[in-house]
Amino acid sequence: MERRGYHHGNLREALIRAALSLIAEKGPAGFTFAEAARSAGVSPAAPYRHFRDRDDLMADVARQGFTRFEAMLARAWNDGRPDALTAFGQIGKAYLAFARTEPAYYSAMFESGLPLDAHPDLQQAGDRAFAILKAAADAICRRLPPGKSPPPLMVALHLWSLAHGIAALFGRGDAARRKLPMSAEDLLEAGLLVYLDGLGLNGPA
Amino acid sequence: MERRGYHHGNLREALIRAALSLIAEKGPAGFTFAEAARSAGVSPAAPYRHFRDRDDLMADVARQGFTRFEAMLARAWNDGRPDALTAFGQIGKAYLAFARTEPAYYSAMFESGLPLDAHPDLQQAGDRAFAILKAAADAICRRLPPGKSPPPLMVALHLWSLAHGIAALFGRGDAARRKLPMSAEDLLEAGLLVYLDGLGLNGPA
Repeated sequence: MERRGYHHGNLREALIRAALSLIAEKGPAGFTFAEAARSAGVSPAAPYRHFRDRDDLMADVARQGFTRFEAMLARAWNDGRPDALTAFGQIGKAYLAFARTEPAYYSAMFESGLPLDAHPDLQQAGDRAFAILKAAADAICRRLPPGKSPPPLMVALHLWSLAHGIAALFGRGDAARRKLPMSAEDLLEAGLLVYLDGLGLNGPA
Repeated sequence: MERRGYHHGNLREALIRAALSLIAEKGPAGFTFAEAARSAGVSPAAPYRHFRDRDDLMADVARQGFTRFEAMLARAWNDGRPDALTAFGQIGKAYLAFARTEPAYYSAMFESGLPLDAHPDLQQAGDRAFAILKAAADAICRRLPPGKSPPPLMVALHLWSLAHGIAALFGRGDAARRKLPMSAEDLLEAGLLVYLDGLGLNGPA
């Protein structure tokens, strides 16, 4: 069968590892299903036991990434509570930390262009991670006077976009390359402080 | 020489076109120098007349992209002036418009991982585009009382990061995929309004 004689679960995990290495080296669109098989040391037919096609493998890599991401965000959220502002900032920092330490997962999650509606497991894993950003935004908005709060979903999307933009531009070894005059973390923290001021919140509760 | 008998300038441009198509199809890391030559219909040796290597070709694609980007941002800046807040918002919209209409250039500019210090022309083209964001941030900060303004460079980096994050997450045909409850443009505009409020600015001058 396969050259390395993988057990069922091992082959699946070996293919995910191979995909992560190839993503790191060539980007999420830069390799074929057969290359992933070769890189895992198995025959071109072997991956079909676990994945329908290349997209299905990528979706599983991204799904696994979102599950780890969710755990990291949840830890940050718990560390920051009960103060909503602290928790908001901690989640932003965790976002940057994940992009920095797991660039291949990050790329599979956000740059693979997979159609989410064709991959419900991936969609659900992404939704679970986003739910933590949303919970943090809910907590922020609960601190605002009634009628003075924007939709919490919008606040969550702003946190997500700012963190994602900073991670993509400066948070993956690019800081030196782009000569950022501060750390990505400091840039995000300063941005969130201005934003929270704009909502009418300043300083911890 | 080449199968299609390109003239000097035509071959250069044909290779850039081929690279743009390959980026759109396979991502910025998903093809070799030889594939770009094949796609342009020339021999594997022909590109060396214009580019040292694949990175050199990619850098030229990205440089050309930044020059177009700069023109689009400059137009938005001029359309929005003299009101700094309007100009700030127009630049954000132009940023999203570029990412949406020129996804292959955008990818070469921001996702190719090229070392900027090895490509001074690219670095300069990027700096010129960023100078427009910086000019808009300078104009914003001049409207704040002395001593109340954050560094304009930081404000420019926040505009860049928020626009980039929204473009990357929702601005490239992904809105439907991610079920955004508003347009990418509206999300950016709302975010900039909260941010400008946080700086102490609201409403046009």
